[in-house]
Amino acid sequence: MLLILNGPNLNRLGKREPGVYGTLTLEELERQCELWGSELSTTVTCRQSNFEGQLLEWIHDAEEHGFSGIVINPGALTHYSYALRDAIAGQNVPVVEVHISNVDAREEFRHKSVTAAVCKGKISGLGFAGYRFAMEYLIEEVGQ
Amino acid sequence: MLLILNGPNLNRLGKREPGVYGTLTLEELERQCELWGSELSTTVTCRQSNFEGQLLEWIHDAEEHGFSGIVINPGALTHYSYALRDAIAGQNVPVVEVHISNVDAREEFRHKSVTAAVCKGKISGLGFAGYRFAMEYLIEEVGQ
Amino acid sequence: MLLILNGPNLNRLGKREPGVYGTLTLEELERQCELWGSELSTTVTCRQSNFEGQLLEWIHDAEEHGFSGIVINPGALTHYSYALRDAIAGQNVPVVEVHISNVDAREEFRHKSVTAAVCKGKISGLGFAGYRFAMEYLIEEVGQ
Amino acid sequence: MLLILNGPNLNRLGKREPGVYGTLTLEELERQCELWGSELSTTVTCRQSNFEGQLLEWIHDAEEHGFSGIVINPGALTHYSYALRDAIAGQNVPVVEVHISNVDAREEFRHKSVTAAVCKGKISGLGFAGYRFAMEYLIEEVGQ
Amino acid sequence: MLLILNGPNLNRLGKREPGVYGTLTLEELERQCELWGSELSTTVTCRQSNFEGQLLEWIHDAEEHGFSGIVINPGALTHYSYALRDAIAGQNVPVVEVHISNVDAREEFRHKSVTAAVCKGKISGLGFAGYRFAMEYLIEEVGQ
Amino acid sequence: MLLILNGPNLNRLGKREPGVYGTLTLEELERQCELWGSELSTTVTCRQSNFEGQLLEWIHDAEEHGFSGIVINPGALTHYSYALRDAIAGQNVPVVEVHISNVDAREEFRHKSVTAAVCKGKISGLGFAGYRFAMEYLIEEVGQ
Amino acid sequence: MLLILNGPNLNRLGKREPGVYGTLTLEELERQCELWGSELSTTVTCRQSNFEGQLLEWIHDAEEHGFSGIVINPGALTHYSYALRDAIAGQNVPVVEVHISNVDAREEFRHKSVTAAVCKGKISGLGFAGYRFAMEYLIEEVGQ
Amino acid sequence: MLLILNGPNLNRLGKREPGVYGTLTLEELERQCELWGSELSTTVTCRQSNFEGQLLEWIHDAEEHGFSGIVINPGALTHYSYALRDAIAGQNVPVVEVHISNVDAREEFRHKSVTAAVCKGKISGLGFAGYRFAMEYLIEEVGQ
Amino acid sequence: MLLILNGPNLNRLGKREPGVYGTLTLEELERQCELWGSELSTTVTCRQSNFEGQLLEWIHDAEEHGFSGIVINPGALTHYSYALRDAIAGQNVPVVEVHISNVDAREEFRHKSVTAAVCKGKISGLGFAGYRFAMEYLIEEVGQ
Amino acid sequence: MLLILNGPNLNRLGKREPGVYGTLTLEELERQCELWGSELSTTVTCRQSNFEGQLLEWIHDAEEHGFSGIVINPGALTHYSYALRDAIAGQNVPVVEVHISNVDAREEFRHKSVTAAVCKGKISGLGFAGYRFAMEYLIEEVGQ
Amino acid sequence: MLLILNGPNLNRLGKREPGVYGTLTLEELERQCELWGSELSTTVTCRQSNFEGQLLEWIHDAEEHGFSGIVINPGALTHYSYALRDAIAGQNVPVVEVHISNVDAREEFRHKSVTAAVCKGKISGLGFAGYRFAMEYLIEEVGQ
Amino acid sequence: MLLILNGPNLNRLGKREPGVYGTLTLEELERQCELWGSELSTTVTCRQSNFEGQLLEWIHDAEEHGFSGIVINPGALTHYSYALRDAIAGQNVPVVEVHISNVDAREEFRHKSVTAAVCKGKISGLGFAGYRFAMEYLIEEVGQ
Repeated sequence: MLLILNGPNLNRLGKREPGVYGTLTLEELERQCELWGSELSTTVTCRQSNFEGQLLEWIHDAEEHGFSGIVINPGALTHYSYALRDAIAGQNVPVVEVHISNVDAREEFRHKSVTAAVCKGKISGLGFAGYRFAMEYLIEEVGQ
Repeated sequence: MLLILNGPNLNRLGKREPGVYGTLTLEELERQCELWGSELSTTVTCRQSNFEGQLLEWIHDAEEHGFSGIVINPGALTHYSYALRDAIAGQNVPVVEVHISNVDAREEFRHKSVTAAVCKGKISGLGFAGYRFAMEYLIEEVGQ
Repeated sequence: MLLILNGPNLNRLGKREPGVYGTLTLEELERQCELWGSELSTTVTCRQSNFEGQLLEWIHDAEEHGFSGIVINPGALTHYSYALRDAIAGQNVPVVEVHISNVDAREEFRHKSVTAAVCKGKISGLGFAGYRFAMEYLIEEVGQ
Repeated sequence: MLLILNGPNLNRLGKREPGVYGTLTLEELERQCELWGSELSTTVTCRQSNFEGQLLEWIHDAEEHGFSGIVINPGALTHYSYALRDAIAGQNVPVVEVHISNVDAREEFRHKSVTAAVCKGKISGLGFAGYRFAMEYLIEEVGQ
Repeated sequence: MLLILNGPNLNRLGKREPGVYGTLTLEELERQCELWGSELSTTVTCRQSNFEGQLLEWIHDAEEHGFSGIVINPGALTHYSYALRDAIAGQNVPVVEVHISNVDAREEFRHKSVTAAVCKGKISGLGFAGYRFAMEYLIEEVGQ
Repeated sequence: MLLILNGPNLNRLGKREPGVYGTLTLEELERQCELWGSELSTTVTCRQSNFEGQLLEWIHDAEEHGFSGIVINPGALTHYSYALRDAIAGQNVPVVEVHISNVDAREEFRHKSVTAAVCKGKISGLGFAGYRFAMEYLIEEVGQ
Repeated sequence: MLLILNGPNLNRLGKREPGVYGTLTLEELERQCELWGSELSTTVTCRQSNFEGQLLEWIHDAEEHGFSGIVINPGALTHYSYALRDAIAGQNVPVVEVHISNVDAREEFRHKSVTAAVCKGKISGLGFAGYRFAMEYLIEEVGQ
Repeated sequence: MLLILNGPNLNRLGKREPGVYGTLTLEELERQCELWGSELSTTVTCRQSNFEGQLLEWIHDAEEHGFSGIVINPGALTHYSYALRDAIAGQNVPVVEVHISNVDAREEFRHKSVTAAVCKGKISGLGFAGYRFAMEYLIEEVGQ
Repeated sequence: MLLILNGPNLNRLGKREPGVYGTLTLEELERQCELWGSELSTTVTCRQSNFEGQLLEWIHDAEEHGFSGIVINPGALTHYSYALRDAIAGQNVPVVEVHISNVDAREEFRHKSVTAAVCKGKISGLGFAGYRFAMEYLIEEVGQ
Repeated sequence: MLLILNGPNLNRLGKREPGVYGTLTLEELERQCELWGSELSTTVTCRQSNFEGQLLEWIHDAEEHGFSGIVINPGALTHYSYALRDAIAGQNVPVVEVHISNVDAREEFRHKSVTAAVCKGKISGLGFAGYRFAMEYLIEEVGQ
Repeated sequence: MLLILNGPNLNRLGKREPGVYGTLTLEELERQCELWGSELSTTVTCRQSNFEGQLLEWIHDAEEHGFSGIVINPGALTHYSYALRDAIAGQNVPVVEVHISNVDAREEFRHKSVTAAVCKGKISGLGFAGYRFAMEYLIEEVGQ
Repeated sequence: MLLILNGPNLNRLGKREPGVYGTLTLEELERQCELWGSELSTTVTCRQSNFEGQLLEWIHDAEEHGFSGIVINPGALTHYSYALRDAIAGQNVPVVEVHISNVDAREEFRHKSVTAAVCKGKISGLGFAGYRFAMEYLIEEVGQ
């Protein structure tokens, strides 16, 4: 069972800078993830919050709620939220960080991730497909 | 129709470091803004939050709620909230950043704004009048 | 009357990196603090939040609610939350910053505190006892 | 009585990078300022120089010449002229710094102002209107 | 038709720091990639070189040789080879950068990629599966 | 049995910058520490030196001389004496670093401690009481 | 028609650090440039100023005065005069930056040019010949 | 007799980023250089390599092979190859560094040359003509 | 014969920040210097300019005008005018740099002098007496 | 009564790098200072130590021993001894910092003084005469 | 059996900057190393390459080829070749890094070694003897 | 005749961090050095001090005391003692710097040596053998 977390501003997908993020909405992304979950024979729960604190609590509770993996796109929190880093480091469910756009090709401040070091890995620039790859990785990793 | 957003700690105006911010309260500032709105023949909605996530959502919804301009004093979020930057960049309503005190004359960390680059402009050090100037600018800009 | 504030992820005490933080839980820490309060003949109120905004508001209201001192462990907010710094600076109740682990012996980013400069002082690396010392300090300081 | 100072290259307004600065000329800006002066019931003197030394001397003499406020757009001197900073700091007439473009949205070197710390405040990115707001601020501030 | 490029020291896979890179060899990785290619109905050509110059030339020739995508693990060249960056930027075949280990969790110098900005995206920390995800991405992207 | 070490310039307590350090002298501090020792049923030996080399040797000999804990206020050596760091790291008696003033609220160079990483923890800004808390910590820690 | 501009201290050529700049004087350099102009069938106007402001104004007026290219040796202004940069950027005549000595082989501060980014190109270390090459380049570029 | 060396990726001239480097190929550049050599009554040998090691060896052998000057465009090696720097510094043939594009107007990392300090001088941004100017300089310098 | 040069804003002595610079005027300083010249049996010429270019030219001409030493207080140009540095380095008259206030005790930017390296030495913080000491040094040095 | 303090390695004067420090010995310097003391009608006590701790104690005791001023050449301690800085700041006798050589013209690390900020001022590069000027300054300052 | 590796430009020994590296050639160094090998009763194989890739492969194969130790002088690759670092780290033969000249006394960029951290140790500035010491160390270390 | 100097904390060898420094004591190291001295037909004097000042004075007197070479392990002073650097630079006996552990493989601050630039060379990471190599080098160097 996988948890898909989207952070600040990702509820604006499709409306926010379509040149960077495409025209599909968060709902469409979440439907995609559920479909991919079916294909991978796992249940997928999708959540989005603009509140750092909410994201932390979903991560805190993930193991207890039966999730075996977390896919997280922390949005801009990636670049400064040491609290998010601590939340990930302080639990046992494996986490993969995903970015829709190629953050290394954008502003300098987006090149630094304070969270990636405590995740299993990071995928960036591959659009929505990044979520799917993260899901596949977690299912394979956890399913064994 | 203008949206006036005040960020963290600005509910403490009048009580917080009066040597820096003066003795007038947030309520008085908001009454002022509404008055200035009348003079500019526009409706003004004032909101304050200590939660980054709440500010993001007010910005997300501004266009849909009919606002044609946003005046924002992000408080200390100015210096680190890339999430706020992304929220502003990811919508179409013009935004002006305002600071009551002269941030360039204070601690080093206050000299840097991570949000100004995606606003129309920035006003600092002119006290409450900064809000008025921002409102005038937005009305002139938008009204044409 | 003292206010004990614990920030992001501290609800995970006992579960989170026990090698670093020990195996006692937040509840046990809070019971300890209440006991120490009794010994110091003061009432202790313990609160924890994963939301920066919530911590700000508890600090804002501390004086009005009759607290004469605040012990705060801001968790990872220590390293970037200038909003927390402003909240502490903008009120009159003395504050002591506490860290359970020895932050100077961990990652580089934990060596910097953006909040300590506006507190009375800081205690780190002394485990739960750090809270007791902060309480003793505040009672002595305030009680005279 | 207000002094409006424009620094290096501002005589090129209208000809210089119109995408950034618009197509109106310095003369038109100065006429605007005089008009705004009339509306504010004050006399306005406008001067422009490409010489740092000349700007310094106009600032030195401002008080003696009866000016009660200075609006200055130091152009690129903003970013390195500590001499200009010292000139402003070493006299008593209140000064407001103005930039036509949003300097925070341009090259890195334009994000730093060495002069703003000794001014009353700073306005950037609001086009010619920035001059008007600075004038209003100075008249209100001084006129009382 | 996909080109899989492995850079310096990747011929040492399986022998080199197995705690970091696993015990499978480059040959096994390359067999894997060919298998995945079959599953994706594409031909895969795998090459490894310890010479920056050789990698450049394989990239230069990729389009002419009929490749429609490149998966590259530049090894340590990632962190300093601006020549590799220019080779990638100066041709038209889409490139995905892959790292077997989670580079963000290792030494500081591994956090910086000089090549990622000119690739489509980057995958790190997901082991050999990263190559597969990159291949899937390129086939989907190119096949349409 | 505890060793209390005070470093350079602390013999000037009471005379040196009383606004920062208070008006009590080193002798009074040392009397205090001895009293607190009695209350904690331990013997306390207090020493002060302005010589880095002397402090090193007292630390070297602490274990052999039967001390079970060291409280050290290294004065300005805190900020550059890697030799002191090595002396602390190279022996087995637990050490707590104490600063009378809130070093994080003073000059930039005082924010960095090169010694804290090899101590058990650090207390700053709590005046003389910091020594008492350090002593309590060491007795509790060692006495078990 | 070409404009040759020499900045601060270049009137000292021949007298100033002959080991670095040679023993020929500014007059001799200017005669050379005029000769080279004849060879290139163009008129050359040579000017030198120690005043940043004067250089700015010559650049401002270049197009109107019929110049089709500018060769500029900004002297030490190269390293800090953002005003000079803005003057060059804010007009249409192509500019080539020339340095007589090899600035990259001298003090660190000479390695940075704040003006080169807005010129067509830069020549350094080739002595007086650098001016000739710049002239040839401009004649070829402009003459077509 | 002159040696013209082109470094990594310059074999891609005409195909690589034509907006930056133009549409002429390396072959055409080399033919140009040979022609210019004839005009200067010297023989020209042109070589290109994508291997740092090969460039080093051509430089090592230049004097013995009878070359009296080297024109080098090190491509991206300019920015990090201290080995190239040492090769140039460790022999006696004068070298001029050439860049086709204006490197100071591109990415930050291109502003730094680690090789220019040990060359006679540097020409950038003047297109192919830069090679000709370098050749003229070397013939004049060496021919005397 | 000595030349006393005062740079930007020093004509404001006595009026400018008297807490920092005292209440005596530039005229009084110059009268003092002339008196001290008499005592040292030398003629003193005092000049002040707010123009960098003017200061450069006075330095250029010093030797020819018969001066055997220069005392210069470059004001804020100290911190950025590499042109001033080059002017001093490019002539033979010995120069001593003087600052009235203790620049090392003020803002960070005042701690760096770009001119001192090419002067004989530097005196700061000793008020007007610094000029006298510089004069004595030059007379002793030159007179032998 | 003046105290002249020389720090580490100054006992090597005359033997140590005579090209930098001259050929006169510390004894000769001290005799000079005593002579100058006589001329200034004051008693001079000269001391040198290679031990930071010893210098600190001489400074601590200066006032009690009746000194009305201190001239200090801290040698290399200038660049890192924050303990020396604290010793100077923590007492009331005025101090002038002197360096025989022009530290700003030497290695980068010598450009920074951690002690000058708490002295009255600094003299560098004027040889032994720097001590005399410091003495004159202190006598004038104190004698009034 | 020992492998002696010399990196880029070391084939130029004796010809390259003899003031820095002496007048003996690489051949003479290699003969020396073989002689020293005889004295240490071990076989020595000497190789030099100007290609990073070649050095990597020699290191990769060292163990398999029966070498029990490697002495490497990586030349300028020391300062940037993370690929070389990874090659050394990714195998089991002990490596000692040697530099003929005292790199710490030369340009800033030579002070940093990216390879030393994964070697056993480093010897610099002791001329050819450094190779001998490295050999002795490896024989002693390995022979036991 | 050789002088072996060991700096702060080296009297703790064998007791201090045996994982890093081994279990042999300073006495054993010094006996080793004396034995090696016999083998090299030279007398060896070994000294250790925890006082920077003492080390300086031993270096000052080395030549006069007949030493022809110094082997120094400055301990942590390596990283900040510019006074030690000046002591070494200010005398004529050749000095070799030795570190038992591989400082480049430890904390960042240990990568920088402020003393190595004025020594003949540096050996690190080779254990006690490093002292022997330094001795051999000095005997060979001096004995000729």
